[in-house]
Amino acid sequence: MNILCIDTSTSLASVALAVEERIVAESLFACERTLSARLVPEIERLLASVGVAIADIDLFACAIGPGSFTGVRAGVATVQGLALATGRPCAGFSTLALLAMNFPMAAHPVCTLLDARKSEVYAALYDTSPLIPAPIVADCVMPPERLLALVREATERPVIFAGEGALRYREPISTAMGERAIFAPFPHHAGRAANGTLLAMEVCRTAKTVAPADLLPVYIRPSEAELARKKS
Amino acid sequence: MNILCIDTSTSLASVALAVEERIVAESLFACERTLSARLVPEIERLLASVGVAIADIDLFACAIGPGSFTGVRAGVATVQGLALATGRPCAGFSTLALLAMNFPMAAHPVCTLLDARKSEVYAALYDTSPLIPAPIVADCVMPPERLLALVREATERPVIFAGEGALRYREPISTAMGERAIFAPFPHHAGRAANGTLLAMEVCRTAKTVAPADLLPVYIRPSEAELARKKS
Repeated sequence: MNILCIDTSTSLASVALAVEERIVAESLFACERTLSARLVPEIERLLASVGVAIADIDLFACAIGPGSFTGVRAGVATVQGLALATGRPCAGFSTLALLAMNFPMAAHPVCTLLDARKSEVYAALYDTSPLIPAPIVADCVMPPERLLALVREATERPVIFAGEGALRYREPISTAMGERAIFAPFPHHAGRAANGTLLAMEVCRTAKTVAPADLLPVYIRPSEAELARKKS
Repeated sequence: MNILCIDTSTSLASVALAVEERIVAESLFACERTLSARLVPEIERLLASVGVAIADIDLFACAIGPGSFTGVRAGVATVQGLALATGRPCAGFSTLALLAMNFPMAAHPVCTLLDARKSEVYAALYDTSPLIPAPIVADCVMPPERLLALVREATERPVIFAGEGALRYREPISTAMGERAIFAPFPHHAGRAANGTLLAMEVCRTAKTVAPADLLPVYIRPSEAELARKKS
């Protein structure tokens, strides 16, 4: 099975191609304001570099959030387009689970956090001993203090903190967790589409792939636009 | 500090750029027979994509082996050239340690293996609980059966097996280790230059960076050319 997988939900985007359970190419690129201009060319470049055509892809996968609204939308829309044009299925997975996959079989639970603005974080706590990370605290959005209370209730063990939210809220994490807080080394703070191909295979194995129209972003909280519409 | 790091010691090469302890770009690409044609263009493309000039790099780093003789030589030579031209230092690190960094803070020791041909493996056993993997069995070359005996002497715990050698010798590993053998999921069988930037920082911190002329490959065993020369 050939899987094209993308993650555009944080400031470091990634695209990866797996051919028969082997990663043959992956690209990570910073894309704060240039995502829409870079994503499709990057996919084209990656496929061309290994001589694989879009028609050869069996499954299109992407992180569906939580994360940057614009980033998640761009990723989902691109995968929907590719899948619609080729008649292939889509697989979506959590951005926070993808990030937890940077720590396979870790000795401690992994808390992945993204900055959700408004003094909140998107976060989850995962057990990464199984092949696919198992949620201990499911994906949520809340102030970091409340999340840290949940984490302390959930485990008495040391906890690995990773992701842009762990960098942003390093101080409150240290205060709440004391010596139990282990901050991930810097190369492990971004998700990798290569690991996403494994999540995508699991989506496939459990028969949860979807048609393009059913690949939906998971924002966890309503967008600014929705809030504004409700108010008016 | 800006670090450019490359790993060309296996069939999946990678190039990464870290700017002030942040990965800003990374590229992984399959390169069995095309490495010399692809490596320099890939470095140029990566730097251009983030607007960083070669003159802005403070440290050039690469995996110095063990691994493919040709691949390691190409990586070391490229880094030597870049460092010589810019007057910057070099940092070298083990290919097997880089591979172990795919499992940060793993619950079990990590045995990384590469196929060394001639029915042998390049291999090592690492404890990945510290920031920089600590060798339990140091980098070596030997038949897989002898390595597995060493591993069984070194630990009674389950062991994570990763790398192209783990795929090649899956059967003898299973036979020798039984249920204690945990095979890494497929996205984790190749080293990543992004993780190498962390190894390079450690080389820097311990004042072990070298001048270009002193960045030497570590083949562990003599090359075919050397053996032929000795025979003649």
